[in-house]
Amino acid sequence: MTQIYLDNGATTKVADEVAKEVLRYFTELYGNASSSHNFGESANEGLERARIIIAKSLNADIDEIYFTSGGTESDNIAIRGTAYANKDKGNHIITSVIEHPAVLSTCKELEQEGVEVTYLHVDSYGLINPNELISAIKDTTILVSIMSANNEIGTIQPITEIGEICSRQNILFHTDSVQAFTKVPIDVKKQKISLASFSGHKIHAPKGIGAIYIKKGVKVSPLLFGGSQEKKLRPGTENIPGIVGFAKAVELALRDGISGVERLTKLRNKLIDGILKISGTKLNGHPTKRLCMNANISFEGIKGETLLYELNRNGIAVSSGSACAAKSSKPSHVLTAIGLGCEKYPATIRFTLSRYTTEDEIEYTIKIVTNIVEGLRREIEVVH
Amino acid sequence: MTQIYLDNGATTKVADEVAKEVLRYFTELYGNASSSHNFGESANEGLERARIIIAKSLNADIDEIYFTSGGTESDNIAIRGTAYANKDKGNHIITSVIEHPAVLSTCKELEQEGVEVTYLHVDSYGLINPNELISAIKDTTILVSIMSANNEIGTIQPITEIGEICSRQNILFHTDSVQAFTKVPIDVKKQKISLASFSGHKIHAPKGIGAIYIKKGVKVSPLLFGGSQEKKLRPGTENIPGIVGFAKAVELALRDGISGVERLTKLRNKLIDGILKISGTKLNGHPTKRLCMNANISFEGIKGETLLYELNRNGIAVSSGSACAAKSSKPSHVLTAIGLGCEKYPATIRFTLSRYTTEDEIEYTIKIVTNIVEGLRREIEVVH
Repeated sequence: MTQIYLDNGATTKVADEVAKEVLRYFTELYGNASSSHNFGESANEGLERARIIIAKSLNADIDEIYFTSGGTESDNIAIRGTAYANKDKGNHIITSVIEHPAVLSTCKELEQEGVEVTYLHVDSYGLINPNELISAIKDTTILVSIMSANNEIGTIQPITEIGEICSRQNILFHTDSVQAFTKVPIDVKKQKISLASFSGHKIHAPKGIGAIYIKKGVKVSPLLFGGSQEKKLRPGTENIPGIVGFAKAVELALRDGISGVERLTKLRNKLIDGILKISGTKLNGHPTKRLCMNANISFEGIKGETLLYELNRNGIAVSSGSACAAKSSKPSHVLTAIGLGCEKYPATIRFTLSRYTTEDEIEYTIKIVTNIVEGLRREIEVVH
Repeated sequence: MTQIYLDNGATTKVADEVAKEVLRYFTELYGNASSSHNFGESANEGLERARIIIAKSLNADIDEIYFTSGGTESDNIAIRGTAYANKDKGNHIITSVIEHPAVLSTCKELEQEGVEVTYLHVDSYGLINPNELISAIKDTTILVSIMSANNEIGTIQPITEIGEICSRQNILFHTDSVQAFTKVPIDVKKQKISLASFSGHKIHAPKGIGAIYIKKGVKVSPLLFGGSQEKKLRPGTENIPGIVGFAKAVELALRDGISGVERLTKLRNKLIDGILKISGTKLNGHPTKRLCMNANISFEGIKGETLLYELNRNGIAVSSGSACAAKSSKPSHVLTAIGLGCEKYPATIRFTLSRYTTEDEIEYTIKIVTNIVEGLRREIEVVH
């Protein structure tokens, strides 16, 4: 049976080259990076080589990269870690209403602990307004946390402008780059980013590995306590196979480079153009300021679950809303924020492509989506 | 060159059967367990099957098992999570002086936050005294955290007795079972354990995956915030390949069963007997209440680093003290606690075996250790 995976925003297939590298560290170079023998040294070399690769890809210094268990942990460290460590400077954080749950739930938790949080609104494209950000800044603001690109609708935020604003006001700037990493160029120095979160499994590396960039000098409290790994910011035996695999995935993305992004953009546009030919459809997010691999489309007059079910039955894996909300029946907080009415558009589907997506798959998907939607609408007419 | 890995207390080789299973979830069944399509369903099935296997191995209920990123995170959740969630009941915790850094550092951190911590002493074998535990209990005691078996000297604590004491007094009992898991039988119901920590990479599963058992009804605050995975106790995309690999490793250990433990005990005893034939050597930890794969031996009159270096040069990977302290030059807190004088015994080596350790490797190791130690001592005599 045809199996077309267009849910790469939720998670990705581990690249064969990555799997091969991880396997080598599973069964050959399996030492503990803290151990003083050949096995330990090989592991430690892998760890430090990976740190260099990831640092370089972000224009960060090597000792500004820390490995974590994933994007959620990185977001928690970035936000709660800075809130706790910078209490003397203030207790106000600014974020946006369309952040990932790892950021939003963390901010909600901090509110319980007495931290004040401002949630910036977004326009109908999902863009924050830098002027609203400037207005929101207070004397007590210590941190601004705005995602590089949205996981549901793919909108890319004006990160450079936000970094500039924060830097001028001497406020820390964290960006959740989990979706954007390797798809949107990130230069932590040029963009004046203080902290950034990354995840392996969104870029063809294993699940359970992530990283956080912390600019030298930025004070961050650890959230876990134990050994002295990762300069005590993240104790626990380092996940070397995951770390090495993560770095390998970054290398593959760098190898794809701009041509990889251009190829995905072209495929994505073909998909969008094809599906928008169906009547009663609408693209969500910004038409151009969007992730090269993201197409988020709403459909009039049919149920989201039904469409998802029919697509899956035809071998096409996509998601409705964000991956984290897929099993929930509530409309996603992102779609609500951009003013999408669930009445007019009950079905919203996120198609997310990857390096492995082919033109044939896109053509097949357009055909199947068209058939299903038109079929479902005919059924409804017949019933009525 | 000969490469004999006797540092399985630090970390283990991923079993081939485990690697194969992980690989399948890397490149075929790579969906996000939260997604509503075939890929997501396969991932979710793997997740829940793994939960059943691990629960069963501990005589726990299925919904009492939560997956984490490893032993350190499990220990943090168990201790800080219960301290925060049970503040209304008290603010006193009892632990021991020889716990893993993940427990000790967490307790030190809680002391900073106003929690009172009692550190039980151990005898020369590394055993806590249940009567000392009983005396330490106060009206404000909410939690006792005692490891199942020590990571350095291998001593197995009287867990059943401790569980009985805590249960009688209605106090939560957490045990760090990271080293003991699959080597010492654990029955959470019979042993009246409230919380227990486990790690994959100590039992031939990948690094970066762990679990925590939390008895139904025990209140625990999460330490990370985000999506609703693992009933919100541990948000973040589930590390399905790691989880499935962890369960596979448990299955392999169960397959080995008692005969596996007996085989290791025999090999370990052979190693101990062989090395203790060298004059000026001493076994640390209990002679019989010890992990089947642990031999911790001190050597008079030679430096630990030198011995470690020479062993590595001869292809034997071991550690001095715990893995976490290997790069530190301070004497380990465990060896200090059992009263081992660094003056008389400057060198202490931990040999930790695994399923893959052969009798030939043990014989070779005895020969090499004997040669090195006798050689080093002759050198010292010549110099003197």
